[in-house]
Amino acid sequence: MSQDPLVIFTPSGKRGRFPVGTPVLTAARQLGVDLDSVCGGRGICSKCQVQPAYGDFPKHGVTVAADAVGDRNAVEDRYDRIRGLKPGRRLGCQACVQSDVVIDVPPESQVHRQVVRKAASDRPITMDPATRLYYVEVAEPDMLDPTGDLQRLGNALRDQWDIPQVSLAPALLPGLQKVLRKGDWKVTVALHKPAAEAVPQIVALWPGLHESGLFGLAIDLGSTTIAAHLTDLDTGAVKASAGIMNPQIRFGEDLMSRVSYAMMNPGGEVEMTRAVREAIDALALDICKESGVDPSLVLETVFVCNPVMHHLLLGIDPVELGQAPFALATSDALNLDARDLGLSALPACAQVYVLPCIAGHVGADAAAVALSEQPGRAEELTLIVDVGTNAEILLGDTTRTLACSSPTGPAFEGAQISSGQRAAPGAIEAIRIDPETKEPRFRVIGCDLWSDAPGFAERTAATGVTGICGSGIIEAVAEMRLAGLLDPSGLIGSAEQTGTPRCVPMGRTHEYVILDASAKGGSRITVTQGDIRAIQLAKSALYAGARLLMDTRGVDTVARVTLAGAFGAHISPLHAMVLGMIPDVPLEKVTSAGNAAGHGARIALCSLTARREIEATVKEITKVETAIEPRFQEHFVAANAIPHASDPFPNLLTHVTLPAVSFNTQGEDGGGRRRRRR
Amino acid sequence: MSQDPLVIFTPSGKRGRFPVGTPVLTAARQLGVDLDSVCGGRGICSKCQVQPAYGDFPKHGVTVAADAVGDRNAVEDRYDRIRGLKPGRRLGCQACVQSDVVIDVPPESQVHRQVVRKAASDRPITMDPATRLYYVEVAEPDMLDPTGDLQRLGNALRDQWDIPQVSLAPALLPGLQKVLRKGDWKVTVALHKPAAEAVPQIVALWPGLHESGLFGLAIDLGSTTIAAHLTDLDTGAVKASAGIMNPQIRFGEDLMSRVSYAMMNPGGEVEMTRAVREAIDALALDICKESGVDPSLVLETVFVCNPVMHHLLLGIDPVELGQAPFALATSDALNLDARDLGLSALPACAQVYVLPCIAGHVGADAAAVALSEQPGRAEELTLIVDVGTNAEILLGDTTRTLACSSPTGPAFEGAQISSGQRAAPGAIEAIRIDPETKEPRFRVIGCDLWSDAPGFAERTAATGVTGICGSGIIEAVAEMRLAGLLDPSGLIGSAEQTGTPRCVPMGRTHEYVILDASAKGGSRITVTQGDIRAIQLAKSALYAGARLLMDTRGVDTVARVTLAGAFGAHISPLHAMVLGMIPDVPLEKVTSAGNAAGHGARIALCSLTARREIEATVKEITKVETAIEPRFQEHFVAANAIPHASDPFPNLLTHVTLPAVSFNTQGEDGGGRRRRRR
Repeated sequence: MSQDPLVIFTPSGKRGRFPVGTPVLTAARQLGVDLDSVCGGRGICSKCQVQPAYGDFPKHGVTVAADAVGDRNAVEDRYDRIRGLKPGRRLGCQACVQSDVVIDVPPESQVHRQVVRKAASDRPITMDPATRLYYVEVAEPDMLDPTGDLQRLGNALRDQWDIPQVSLAPALLPGLQKVLRKGDWKVTVALHKPAAEAVPQIVALWPGLHESGLFGLAIDLGSTTIAAHLTDLDTGAVKASAGIMNPQIRFGEDLMSRVSYAMMNPGGEVEMTRAVREAIDALALDICKESGVDPSLVLETVFVCNPVMHHLLLGIDPVELGQAPFALATSDALNLDARDLGLSALPACAQVYVLPCIAGHVGADAAAVALSEQPGRAEELTLIVDVGTNAEILLGDTTRTLACSSPTGPAFEGAQISSGQRAAPGAIEAIRIDPETKEPRFRVIGCDLWSDAPGFAERTAATGVTGICGSGIIEAVAEMRLAGLLDPSGLIGSAEQTGTPRCVPMGRTHEYVILDASAKGGSRITVTQGDIRAIQLAKSALYAGARLLMDTRGVDTVARVTLAGAFGAHISPLHAMVLGMIPDVPLEKVTSAGNAAGHGARIALCSLTARREIEATVKEITKVETAIEPRFQEHFVAANAIPHASDPFPNLLTHVTLPAVSFNTQGEDGGGRRRRRR
Repeated sequence: MSQDPLVIFTPSGKRGRFPVGTPVLTAARQLGVDLDSVCGGRGICSKCQVQPAYGDFPKHGVTVAADAVGDRNAVEDRYDRIRGLKPGRRLGCQACVQSDVVIDVPPESQVHRQVVRKAASDRPITMDPATRLYYVEVAEPDMLDPTGDLQRLGNALRDQWDIPQVSLAPALLPGLQKVLRKGDWKVTVALHKPAAEAVPQIVALWPGLHESGLFGLAIDLGSTTIAAHLTDLDTGAVKASAGIMNPQIRFGEDLMSRVSYAMMNPGGEVEMTRAVREAIDALALDICKESGVDPSLVLETVFVCNPVMHHLLLGIDPVELGQAPFALATSDALNLDARDLGLSALPACAQVYVLPCIAGHVGADAAAVALSEQPGRAEELTLIVDVGTNAEILLGDTTRTLACSSPTGPAFEGAQISSGQRAAPGAIEAIRIDPETKEPRFRVIGCDLWSDAPGFAERTAATGVTGICGSGIIEAVAEMRLAGLLDPSGLIGSAEQTGTPRCVPMGRTHEYVILDASAKGGSRITVTQGDIRAIQLAKSALYAGARLLMDTRGVDTVARVTLAGAFGAHISPLHAMVLGMIPDVPLEKVTSAGNAAGHGARIALCSLTARREIEATVKEITKVETAIEPRFQEHFVAANAIPHASDPFPNLLTHVTLPAVSFNTQGEDGGGRRRRRR
């Protein structure tokens, strides 16, 4: 009794019997095996490469003969000659089943392949992009049965790909006929299908088989910086990353200043919108140029941003975000054309996805962090803080997720700090102060030596020591507290009180001199009382936000803290805790998630499933509005002390001793008044 | 046993019982009675006015008491005081059922009211526009449950109008928040829903109740002229009509010249597209200004045009339409935004609908004629010709419809005629030639006297007699044939041959002098041999096209001829038949349909049902391509004679005698060579 050959696919394990002569691609499709193809089985795209395995497979109960899928045919030979086929590889659309066989589908031949992210803790992204390529052969026009070229293209997609209906981006109409004729009625179309129920739209087309790929930009549009990641929409690989300063800084460093600018200057919001769009255009062109990608291939862009940047990107006056009840114009995710945003670097019909906002002060950037960090899947109650000019704070575990934002201001980014500077070569990024001698030693960006190591001066001669960046100032303030130069209220002691001549008077207060090379024409780098106050304001806001979420959740402690944001990666957990930026947890439970918002943007760029997931998640998140919550003010005031006026830090105290000093002998002006910044 | 009161609506006859106190609008909705409302029953829009009828109604079996719907309430009194309510009218949302009642819904309170068109033969249009107004009250933002303003607007449409999902045109995002606040959270939105399965899109919104209406433009984009009809989308009434010359004339009078221009001049198609779009913008602004309508209220535009104009409007190079196989870039109906067409006079998100094209040479204008004239519903086999620079020809009855186009050239519009001119005051529009004396008498546009009537000179002194328009030249040639001045081959006889000194030599041929006021500084108006040839080419093309459809249908005669086109309205059926423009039918069976293409555009503007109908119809029409059909050439040659070389015209001969003259005594250059024009 003869039976059709058995075909077993790995890694899926899907199996079935097929008549002799069935192409492997056909067998895969019938079994629902995830095997890619752009050309639809014509042997030209090579996306369906498979690896037949030969010999005995007791596990599967089959023995695979050497000729189980026959020999390479002429199409495969030609492909191998011209483009190269790895040893053992076959084209799934050409290799035909002859006898029982085990066929491995390598990851690069899977449509929904998983892309492993860099950090070990990262979840892989399963590729499921909104835009995909389809190669079709279109019927030529027939005078006797006249239909439009577009309709025949639609018929080809229907007949060759089972796509019942498509539309064409109007901007492509003028070029359609030329492309069809140039490709001799064979074309590759890029179809964008943003949702399961949407009619797919042709957003690009090329003559013949398009082999230069498709790309997307994941853009993290921050108040201070704009970061973009150019991503291959086929493989999910990041081709290049680049960042520029947000040119809106000239209208105001923090978000509330920009809202004020729009309120005070008629048309100010239009000016700010134009500035940020121009910057995005420039960034897109730069990153394409740098990586050698034709901008016309960048067919998708995903934006994550805080609510004010969200509105300014969309051309919406942010004035409502500056006053209660902080109403967003729109909170849901948006699908737009690039031209809707006036972006000219990308094709007019390139598609834009903007993640949903969570609340008036909790934006698409926080949603992106939630998408990347998945607080709702955490077994332990996890606090996630994305530290920037505004801090996005999430608290969650499998039972519930809460979110808020807190106006930390730009101090953590080294702004509004007397010796502050951007994280760039020459900036102090780490510092230690000897508790005995009160002498500092430090490291600067661009050199891995400490400043008291031999050779430091030579190695830093080119850059010099120019200032303190965000992570440096956090360490400096924390080290000053640990060294007894700073009391719990945040006052810097005098030389007499501290016993070091590095504490010098500055008006009615004092500053701590880290470095004074001014006599030799170098920098004088100090931490002033004003710097301490700025950091206190920032960290109090951050801590108060976290505390408010904990209150709402009904807890006094959290199990884990994740520091997100580009800057979060550089913060020393110990110093952050000495400062009281974050609640007390075991030090090893404080981890960095890198640029979680940017990661979230990239996930949304690669996966429609992820878009649906975050759209559902944001609706379930408990939103906490810091601006109207009286307890926020209480928490803020209590958090002004370093590390805190009342909350205990038992875990921290197992690592450090906090000197019980007090320098309040004169009428210093208290803890400062809180200014709301966003 | 008491029963709920019986409510009977007229004219629908729908009836049902409702509890005492039920608002009439509620009862109407529950019964599916077509009763309009924009405000959703808040007593402010007055769209739901009804007329209760009182007394005995034996037909319905009820007696209606005087207080059957109670007295006017305060809302109605206020409305009457401020806006006026006709006697007997009530607001359906305020009047509540008290006892049995008969309620008439006047036409203006019906959503799907029928709009009777001017001509008695016209079918009424049932209003079913794609864009409609909805008044909603939107929830104010709530910090504790933050959602975007757009989402709350969507919720209001869902809760107050059962519209589950809407999108917002991106161009409206920047203004959304201001409108909501200006209207104190009460707004009117214009929702565009182009198809049953489409998610409606908000394309405009206004604070409070919007009472200035919505408008649409029906545009007949011809090769020579562009005509627009500004239409009220609520009532279907035409507010104003206006026309301008198509500025593309400077690139070529007929369509093939324009295609050639695009082929010969790189970027020529871009230039032509820009020209026509600018003209449409100017026309839209003019017609709005003239009728006092704010252009921002013109939210829909429907275009009908031939395939070349269709492509040039859409920015598509028409080169493919100039050569076999005459492939359209796209043939299906199109839904676009005004900005897709670069139209700036209208709102960016104003919606455009372009009717489907039938074939490479049979455009959306022919589809519009089919929509207006419904050949597929004709009981008698009907030939419809839309005469313009290109003639659209349809042949149909209830069994089948066929269509073709024929390149008549602009001669019928008075172009390429030596004394030809546009139809304007001073142009000869009708002419009679005495068969005995061969003396002409004529009428000019702007004066209803014939030229031999007393007072003609005085009455036409202001305009003068300046030339011959399209209908005039048809009559002139036909009258020359009837008076024996022209032989069947189209030759003009000499003075000797014809016996009138009005036939004067002109080179080797002759011309007939209608008027010579040149001695007094006036016009000299003649019909030259060249004019006759131009008219022969045009009429032969028209007749050959019609004959080709008849061949395909397998008939030698038709039952009825409909002359469409603005120009068709002015053609004398007798003279058209003498000329042999149209097949022989009883004279009373030749009727004019007015501007059928324009009517079709207006129908599509007012009715989604009509759009679906014509989209289905064009797929069923048998397309006949004149350019490749050998019989077209045969028919063309045979149709060169006046009226025809071989086809009999028995009906015509019951009205006129055709003199059997022949002037071919010298080597005149035959019937001319046919040049293809489109």
